Amino acid sequence: MGGDEAPGKIIDGVVEAVHAFKSQGLSHTLIVTGVKTQIQDHLRRCHSESLLGDSIEIVHTDEVIGMHESPTSALTKKPRSSMHVGMELVKKGEADGFVSMGNTGAVMAVALVGLGRIEGVARPTIGAFFPTLTGKTLVLDVGTNVDCKPLHLLQFGLMGSIYMHAIMNIEDPRVGLLSIGEEASKGDDLTVKSHDLFKQKALFDFIGNVEGRDILKGAADIVVCDGFVGNVVLKFGESIYHFLKSRIKETAHKSTKNALIMGIAKPALRNVFRELDYQEYGGVPLLGVNGVVIIGHGSSSPKALSRAIMVAKEMAEKRINEVIRQRIQSSKE
Amino acid sequence: MGGDEAPGKIIDGVVEAVHAFKSQGLSHTLIVTGVKTQIQDHLRRCHSESLLGDSIEIVHTDEVIGMHESPTSALTKKPRSSMHVGMELVKKGEADGFVSMGNTGAVMAVALVGLGRIEGVARPTIGAFFPTLTGKTLVLDVGTNVDCKPLHLLQFGLMGSIYMHAIMNIEDPRVGLLSIGEEASKGDDLTVKSHDLFKQKALFDFIGNVEGRDILKGAADIVVCDGFVGNVVLKFGESIYHFLKSRIKETAHKSTKNALIMGIAKPALRNVFRELDYQEYGGVPLLGVNGVVIIGHGSSSPKALSRAIMVAKEMAEKRINEVIRQRIQSSKE
Repeated sequence: MGGDEAPGKIIDGVVEAVHAFKSQGLSHTLIVTGVKTQIQDHLRRCHSESLLGDSIEIVHTDEVIGMHESPTSALTKKPRSSMHVGMELVKKGEADGFVSMGNTGAVMAVALVGLGRIEGVARPTIGAFFPTLTGKTLVLDVGTNVDCKPLHLLQFGLMGSIYMHAIMNIEDPRVGLLSIGEEASKGDDLTVKSHDLFKQKALFDFIGNVEGRDILKGAADIVVCDGFVGNVVLKFGESIYHFLKSRIKETAHKSTKNALIMGIAKPALRNVFRELDYQEYGGVPLLGVNGVVIIGHGSSSPKALSRAIMVAKEMAEKRINEVIRQRIQSSKE
Repeated sequence: MGGDEAPGKIIDGVVEAVHAFKSQGLSHTLIVTGVKTQIQDHLRRCHSESLLGDSIEIVHTDEVIGMHESPTSALTKKPRSSMHVGMELVKKGEADGFVSMGNTGAVMAVALVGLGRIEGVARPTIGAFFPTLTGKTLVLDVGTNVDCKPLHLLQFGLMGSIYMHAIMNIEDPRVGLLSIGEEASKGDDLTVKSHDLFKQKALFDFIGNVEGRDILKGAADIVVCDGFVGNVVLKFGESIYHFLKSRIKETAHKSTKNALIMGIAKPALRNVFRELDYQEYGGVPLLGVNGVVIIGHGSSSPKALSRAIMVAKEMAEKRINEVIRQRIQSSKE
């Protein structure tokens, strides 16, 4: 029920995932939690009601958490929301993972209460993917954790590294610490202390400090930072797409020649700019909670949702949370 | 002697400023500090040696601070650098302001030691201008001050507001506090406490928290933040230009059609992207030191340097530092 055009767009994504599984010869069941009649109606409308049963199951609930509802109100006032119900299925082992395009803060809150943290993890984290000249970089944290301590950043780096290795197939993911200079002594108190801890613990391939300019360059596979700065950079980055679109529109309005040129260049430019439109990406994992949870952007396309479902399946199959638990444990020895 | 192509490009800027002053019927003298023979040679090469005397004066020194030298080494090992000499002229009242395209950290260090802080200012600050949909926004601090306290952010807001009012002619500049949510309760410890202090003191038009996405929108005229996050966002922003250029080049290489389209669109796109290339901007003031100091990007064009000189003149004429001193004093009563 979460996301900007729920449940229709969500169900389109679920249907797309079912077909993707089938084309790979797989027969997973996708459980959809939400208002049963709305879900059935939409499946009927897109001629997919035949998928009900083996491929798609509905678990009914009519409590829905709004996109702008506060996490606290979501937690306390709607104990039977589609989010709670989904998380419960994971807890009881009836589902292998939970995917939501809903309110990020609420997903985090419900997951923390419903699933709890992986043993030894001080703070679960949510990251975001940034486009780079060579691929994608996972930046974490991007907003759920502020006023972090060095230990938190260390664990973000470790969990990010495990995720990028297992899911993105990067042999030895490079972890950078976001700072304001390359030298170990540059930065604020948190980064200087974290730099030392990262070196001392050597839990992953720590390539040292990276700067704001290194993110889009792809200097690191994982960029670790406090959620405050991560969130500011993420939202700044998201705004570039709209800034450029407005500017190009203004340029086109200046003359017929400009309008013509921009009209011709539009499809090519769209591909370039789309990368900066983070909404096009699939979901990101909630790392550190005791269960597979993927959160996607509220305006995710059905394709992005389908991709997020695939990632959840992979995270479950590869038992990533078990790997995190073990690596966190051994980091304390 | 500071900047990427010094002293040639710097002198070109000085010559441009002389002509700009003359065209306005003004006869200011520009004092150039640096290696005399190099400066004379360049003036001769561009047929401007006749300006020596009334319009351009040279104060010789052959110590030069490198662009990548550490501020400490600049301070202690080169007491007769062109930067020191320039700052000394300001201190002795022989110059009304100092403009440098050199090493930012060194300019800040030399200014702090040479000129000192304005009475009552806890930490001088350097900001940066970001392009917006409606004009420009001054973000401060962008790197000289990390681990700030609420009082520091309050003073950044006040000094930024005074500057934007006097120099950018904004009647009542809107000051936003950079955070990760609009509500007063959102953010890290520093921003939550600063939000309260800003409201309580009411020294300027505080419009509340702004987010990363609000900077390019132009939601505020001044965006106040800790130098760590400001520096990360600034450098991230600077990298977008190169990211897009690379991506467009790649797109053009994909097919002859794309290459043709991009070739035609190039001039129009250049104007759009240039705004994101912060190097095109003039200088930014060093606010809070006891003297007018403007710092420009190392790769500033002669035009940008000339603009920076005009701003220094205006800051001196409008006695902005005196206004800052008075407003800071009365904020403590």
